[in-house]
Amino acid sequence: MDMSEKLKIAIIGSTGYGGVELIRLLASHPLAEVTSVISSSSAGTPITEGYPHLTGIREELLDDVEPQTIRSKADVVFLATPAAVASKLAPDLLAAGLKVIDLSGDYRLQDRDLYEKWYKKPAADEEYLKQAVYGLAEVYGDRVLGAKLISNPGCYVTAALLGLVPAVQAGFIDPDSIIIDAKSGVSGAGRGASLGTHYSELNESLKAYKLNQHQHTPEIEMVLSDIAGRPVVTTFSTHLVPMTRGIMTTMYATVKDSRSADDFMELYRSYYENRPFVRIRPEGQLPATKEVWGSNYCDIGFAFDSRTGRVTIVSVIDNLVKGAAGQAIQNMNLMMGWDETLGLQFVPVYP
Amino acid sequence: MDMSEKLKIAIIGSTGYGGVELIRLLASHPLAEVTSVISSSSAGTPITEGYPHLTGIREELLDDVEPQTIRSKADVVFLATPAAVASKLAPDLLAAGLKVIDLSGDYRLQDRDLYEKWYKKPAADEEYLKQAVYGLAEVYGDRVLGAKLISNPGCYVTAALLGLVPAVQAGFIDPDSIIIDAKSGVSGAGRGASLGTHYSELNESLKAYKLNQHQHTPEIEMVLSDIAGRPVVTTFSTHLVPMTRGIMTTMYATVKDSRSADDFMELYRSYYENRPFVRIRPEGQLPATKEVWGSNYCDIGFAFDSRTGRVTIVSVIDNLVKGAAGQAIQNMNLMMGWDETLGLQFVPVYP
Amino acid sequence: MDMSEKLKIAIIGSTGYGGVELIRLLASHPLAEVTSVISSSSAGTPITEGYPHLTGIREELLDDVEPQTIRSKADVVFLATPAAVASKLAPDLLAAGLKVIDLSGDYRLQDRDLYEKWYKKPAADEEYLKQAVYGLAEVYGDRVLGAKLISNPGCYVTAALLGLVPAVQAGFIDPDSIIIDAKSGVSGAGRGASLGTHYSELNESLKAYKLNQHQHTPEIEMVLSDIAGRPVVTTFSTHLVPMTRGIMTTMYATVKDSRSADDFMELYRSYYENRPFVRIRPEGQLPATKEVWGSNYCDIGFAFDSRTGRVTIVSVIDNLVKGAAGQAIQNMNLMMGWDETLGLQFVPVYP
Amino acid sequence: MDMSEKLKIAIIGSTGYGGVELIRLLASHPLAEVTSVISSSSAGTPITEGYPHLTGIREELLDDVEPQTIRSKADVVFLATPAAVASKLAPDLLAAGLKVIDLSGDYRLQDRDLYEKWYKKPAADEEYLKQAVYGLAEVYGDRVLGAKLISNPGCYVTAALLGLVPAVQAGFIDPDSIIIDAKSGVSGAGRGASLGTHYSELNESLKAYKLNQHQHTPEIEMVLSDIAGRPVVTTFSTHLVPMTRGIMTTMYATVKDSRSADDFMELYRSYYENRPFVRIRPEGQLPATKEVWGSNYCDIGFAFDSRTGRVTIVSVIDNLVKGAAGQAIQNMNLMMGWDETLGLQFVPVYP
Repeated sequence: MDMSEKLKIAIIGSTGYGGVELIRLLASHPLAEVTSVISSSSAGTPITEGYPHLTGIREELLDDVEPQTIRSKADVVFLATPAAVASKLAPDLLAAGLKVIDLSGDYRLQDRDLYEKWYKKPAADEEYLKQAVYGLAEVYGDRVLGAKLISNPGCYVTAALLGLVPAVQAGFIDPDSIIIDAKSGVSGAGRGASLGTHYSELNESLKAYKLNQHQHTPEIEMVLSDIAGRPVVTTFSTHLVPMTRGIMTTMYATVKDSRSADDFMELYRSYYENRPFVRIRPEGQLPATKEVWGSNYCDIGFAFDSRTGRVTIVSVIDNLVKGAAGQAIQNMNLMMGWDETLGLQFVPVYP
Repeated sequence: MDMSEKLKIAIIGSTGYGGVELIRLLASHPLAEVTSVISSSSAGTPITEGYPHLTGIREELLDDVEPQTIRSKADVVFLATPAAVASKLAPDLLAAGLKVIDLSGDYRLQDRDLYEKWYKKPAADEEYLKQAVYGLAEVYGDRVLGAKLISNPGCYVTAALLGLVPAVQAGFIDPDSIIIDAKSGVSGAGRGASLGTHYSELNESLKAYKLNQHQHTPEIEMVLSDIAGRPVVTTFSTHLVPMTRGIMTTMYATVKDSRSADDFMELYRSYYENRPFVRIRPEGQLPATKEVWGSNYCDIGFAFDSRTGRVTIVSVIDNLVKGAAGQAIQNMNLMMGWDETLGLQFVPVYP
Repeated sequence: MDMSEKLKIAIIGSTGYGGVELIRLLASHPLAEVTSVISSSSAGTPITEGYPHLTGIREELLDDVEPQTIRSKADVVFLATPAAVASKLAPDLLAAGLKVIDLSGDYRLQDRDLYEKWYKKPAADEEYLKQAVYGLAEVYGDRVLGAKLISNPGCYVTAALLGLVPAVQAGFIDPDSIIIDAKSGVSGAGRGASLGTHYSELNESLKAYKLNQHQHTPEIEMVLSDIAGRPVVTTFSTHLVPMTRGIMTTMYATVKDSRSADDFMELYRSYYENRPFVRIRPEGQLPATKEVWGSNYCDIGFAFDSRTGRVTIVSVIDNLVKGAAGQAIQNMNLMMGWDETLGLQFVPVYP
Repeated sequence: MDMSEKLKIAIIGSTGYGGVELIRLLASHPLAEVTSVISSSSAGTPITEGYPHLTGIREELLDDVEPQTIRSKADVVFLATPAAVASKLAPDLLAAGLKVIDLSGDYRLQDRDLYEKWYKKPAADEEYLKQAVYGLAEVYGDRVLGAKLISNPGCYVTAALLGLVPAVQAGFIDPDSIIIDAKSGVSGAGRGASLGTHYSELNESLKAYKLNQHQHTPEIEMVLSDIAGRPVVTTFSTHLVPMTRGIMTTMYATVKDSRSADDFMELYRSYYENRPFVRIRPEGQLPATKEVWGSNYCDIGFAFDSRTGRVTIVSVIDNLVKGAAGQAIQNMNLMMGWDETLGLQFVPVYP
């Protein structure tokens, strides 16, 4: 295939961790290439200034955010921007004829009030919210084909939902009993420097934060309610773990109708049969975050407790890959009608 | 006070992390001193061989386990030994006139069958089990005065129970709804070298293990049942966090009778009023493990969710201090009728 | 290109970190494929048992070491085995018509006495030592084309020599003044469990070890002597850093003939002009190990001190990639007459 | 002893890591007590706001910097402030009758030009520089008795000099040959949030920085020149290690007059005979930073290389204790004529 035929990609927010991970992953995509790396705050400087690891790989200067210029260089734009930025940029980018894949939360919640309550920022316009397709690839992937505006799910949300959706859909668990205990590495907090991302504060420490207040809560509930066919509320806790990458969600629910471990295993294997990025672990084997490090996999394991009648579901992802850049590329693949694994078949980096 | 008046301490299992932490903490105890460091596996060699950090501090050779010799040197013996070792040693030590504080699980479960089921080792003799006082200091501390055989609680157990007991006792939560999501640093696994403690396997990883199968489960349930006045079973999950020290238990329960955040705060403040090692955090502030690092504190925070009717209780300890050596010394203090804080008033090491 | 045309690879020692990294990297090689994963100790069991991260990627059972069977499956064998194992296996593998790339130290030192002195194991046969080509790709790469037995350099050695060779060759520094202060992540010690690889012992610690006694010393001196054209001895220190991957060598030498920073920069840029995996940093910029993480790059930076007349050269690599599996694949590429970057163009994983 | 008799201490810069470590260590000092915690930036707020680990330990509000008020509360002031702040505060504090122990670099260099060149800030007044006693306790400790203004050495400096001074003084090594390869944990960079202290940037990475440009260079050379009796310049490199606490300096020098390992051992043991905080390791044993963690020890080990005629000296300290707060308290003890170990006899925290 000729270079000129490749799908041209622009990345807005290239100096954040999501943006730089898109650059890394797309560097080996067979049918797409990054043609513009954009950062409003650092336009005109080389990206290697902030990211010397790109020396010799991408030496060009960062572009500014100009929809017409972007359109002259690219077909698809990835938005790896802070909350309430994507919703300002997307309309002009769409108008310029670009396809948009948004990695932020701006187009995830269809309910504008809910967005403003949890994000404490102005919500996106109704018109664009309606156009946006929620790209949880393994659940809603078929809606993505041909979409013009894709909303990429949150990192915690992806780990939680991939572990819960089959059981909720099949009625194996009581949706009202769901408790999600989530743990994340520090890169999820982005590159901004603060006491909350300071090495000496986080190293050799485990911290609980935003219990019942994390902005991913309504997103999880939106999907669970959709799958369950009725309103679902959940308990959602988040913890900061002294590691750079990785999310684990440990989820608890009451099992209905005496469903057995075998029933769950069969259900999940069947649900994800043609979904190469979800790996169901054999009974008794629980995943560690390192086992998906640097890859687009979501690994899921189970533990049953007949004494309490509860199942514990454990799912792990790399928050910057399956929880952000990797899933965004998976959505791009689906949008283009390509094999969803294109450019994403990385073996996890171990150890 | 004259040195010769100090309480004389022998430590069996001095080459494990629990033993070496006892040495560290007791080095600054005003009324006790370690007079014999014992290790059956390394007797005759200097402890500095395995622990060079003790150079110039303790240079003597490790003693062997000889009850009569120990009695000639010590008044109290701490057992920091693997499962099923303490129950073999304690009878002879007691017979020799020593007081025994056991840091292992051997005398924790009064039900011998339960011990053998969960520990997969022979249980202690009934006779000594009956003598043993379970030293969860803030709950059962008054029973410890004058005891001859004290069973020191498990590390996870201490963190979980200090966070749960007041609410269960006051009937603020439904005991059947309790879910305990526990996370521990690696030192809890001891000094034995295995793939499960290998740096490259654990660093930059978070691992779930022994879900519903951890041997601390029946110990937690034994106390909760005692407090609730009826049998309680719980869901108990354990995770390995890439840090050396620290345990956090995040606990979920359904709140009864519309108890409010203020009710909980008042209840816990009152329950632990004269208990200097438990610190209740102000509403909205959640503890991190680093904030108790190297100290005997257990810090507790709460989050309420009116939407789900659940409370989330977060408690943190240093697993080697409050979860092992520190609480054992606290029990020694109580046993001797001393102020429980003697020799334990360390400010957490931060950062 | 048809799958059947790919170069077929067998890996002996697949359950070590070097072996499993070869599996990871070769999974995306366009012209080669792993057809047999071999482990004498675990033959007959699935590799996923010890490495669950390979679930769904490589599910076959591990093969045993049988030269004829290997030949029926493969064209090239990578040996990722402990010291003194490769020298036992290679003769039969070569006799069976296989090409051999050895990642161990067995064929690195041409002087058998030196091997036995530093490795304390029996040296390889003279006959095969003579056949072996030392594959420091950027220095001796042209000798590798068509070789049948390639000896892959040591991890520390690679970092040190890539930083020193141009200056020694050009006579810019006094070879007798060279001091190498090397620092490595823990994965360099392999997967064997011992107190020396125990998480709680290494985390939050920095340890010096084997000063002047590391077995990579004679290998470094062998090459420096070859380049300098006279015997060179060096001071070589190694340190264990609390991280999984990465090697940094900080090297000190007295500058000759008033060579300036610009002279060095020009020399190194010129020496590595067509060597895509060595990146010379601009003056004043020093590399960090994370900036090459997961990639085959070696990044080099300089600092000059006119006050002391010394240059400090800093080079970093990922010890498992450029220091082991990556360089071995680079050697395979050169051996086959292919572009040396085939299958190795990974962007470093950052952060 | 009555509380009212204790020496009263004020700490300016209480919200930095040096300040908070002073609070921790002084909490168990038998003859001193902290009576005022001061922070110009956070005056009027409780220190527990930024440091919840002090909950229940120090709940009072932070004071502002007012010399007369401080004098009414305290006898001695510790200054744990950024560069060029102490030199502004000290004159008024001294005038108010307080004794001052400065942990910053402001009074370390007697040469004002040198300070301004390396610190790029205005130097302290000549008058006070002359009064200041440089408190490298094991070397210049006898000058400290009765001093009114003590300048506490830099962290890197302490580790380097304790390892070098005996050999330089005895003429065992060539001062011109000294190369210092220093490595530090992240807490040395203070609590300020920046990309340079960001967890995701530093974790799993090793970084060289400020080679030949670190502001501790002239301080090391000032003392080495003083000891050698002639000007000495050195090569000094600094590296950031992914850990919170700990400094290691690996030092290289050419041995003079065929001095042997035994000569060095004897020399160092003799030099530090009555200095309880310096521990000389037996031959062949090299210290790790964890072995002094949380303590005031400096541990020193040696490696000889007859092939190169060089000695390698390795010294380790906890940068916040012996490298800052601990040594400052040691200086306070010496200033008061007390046993220098008072309040500092902590066993290192291991693991």
